[in-house]
Amino acid sequence: MDFRRLKAQMDFIVEIDKLKQVLRQTFTIHEDRHENDAEHSWHLAAMAFLLDEHAEYDGLDLLKVMRMVLVHDIVEIDAGDTYCYADWDPEEKAERETRAADRIFAMLPADQAQELRSLWDEFEGHNTPESRFAVALDRLQPLLLNYYTDGKSWSIHGVTRQQVMERIAPIKDASLALWEYARSLVDDAAQRGLL
Amino acid sequence: MDFRRLKAQMDFIVEIDKLKQVLRQTFTIHEDRHENDAEHSWHLAAMAFLLDEHAEYDGLDLLKVMRMVLVHDIVEIDAGDTYCYADWDPEEKAERETRAADRIFAMLPADQAQELRSLWDEFEGHNTPESRFAVALDRLQPLLLNYYTDGKSWSIHGVTRQQVMERIAPIKDASLALWEYARSLVDDAAQRGLL
Repeated sequence: MDFRRLKAQMDFIVEIDKLKQVLRQTFTIHEDRHENDAEHSWHLAAMAFLLDEHAEYDGLDLLKVMRMVLVHDIVEIDAGDTYCYADWDPEEKAERETRAADRIFAMLPADQAQELRSLWDEFEGHNTPESRFAVALDRLQPLLLNYYTDGKSWSIHGVTRQQVMERIAPIKDASLALWEYARSLVDDAAQRGLL
Repeated sequence: MDFRRLKAQMDFIVEIDKLKQVLRQTFTIHEDRHENDAEHSWHLAAMAFLLDEHAEYDGLDLLKVMRMVLVHDIVEIDAGDTYCYADWDPEEKAERETRAADRIFAMLPADQAQELRSLWDEFEGHNTPESRFAVALDRLQPLLLNYYTDGKSWSIHGVTRQQVMERIAPIKDASLALWEYARSLVDDAAQRGLL
């Protein structure tokens, strides 16, 4: 039996174990510690299939959304997590992440390397129904974590209500229901002085 | 707008954040610490769509496999992780996990509660193509983690080669290729004295 293709897939699966080490600025809700990218990606994938009925798009390809959220942060194994409210150079970030994508996805057999690269490019471009819904979940999930930890990472970084509203704006096009929900959390957080 | 359905879904999404606290006996490959159930579930979902070509079943419903692996450990939020090589009473474990499923899935709207319960029941029954492939991944992933941490959790618990071979036996029906690969890791681990 020719194990070369399978070996490449397995080496990739071992490599992406590193996503469990990439810490985010958000805190987990029930334990006082930073969340990592693997946990975040799991949460998004579960949210995708629990919440897809609220997407504004008919015929949404849920399997594609789930693939997308499961791999969207893999580039951060090399490129690190960029905090959304920090000052950063978008060109430098894009270059760093593209270099990471070039190295990591290339570990896979060519057809799968291409598939994952396309998923990641589509997510970053967010101009298809699937990527817009995936991005909406990626904005909603940290809002939930922040809200349910009494704004812990907002308070550490002095984040304002306006910054959060700008950050969650893409949810509106993807899902009016999720947008209304997200806005109600921000309103409540602001009233309680968390923002 | 009636938020009741969405609120129930969101409360469930917040509840399952606790999966990030449920520690397993396996260690992450690149960091010397126990893996948790959320990370494990993310890893399985990524493996599902990277490795589904190796499944022995035509027309495998990949989306179902991915849903299944994403939720298969949620009952452990209440029931805790049961170490596969420890002595435990299967009836007591089943009772504990069923109680957990009753409580946690019931947080969702009835149709989704039923859907997740079915997915979990199907996974536990492992007699459909999707559940057999999901179980195969659930046996393969900790083998990878053990192999690439030089058998760390095997050594802590004094696990034997025969115990591992019995544990990974269900991989054979689901995928001959994954089975051959898994067996080659066990052979190599045994030769290196890790088992």
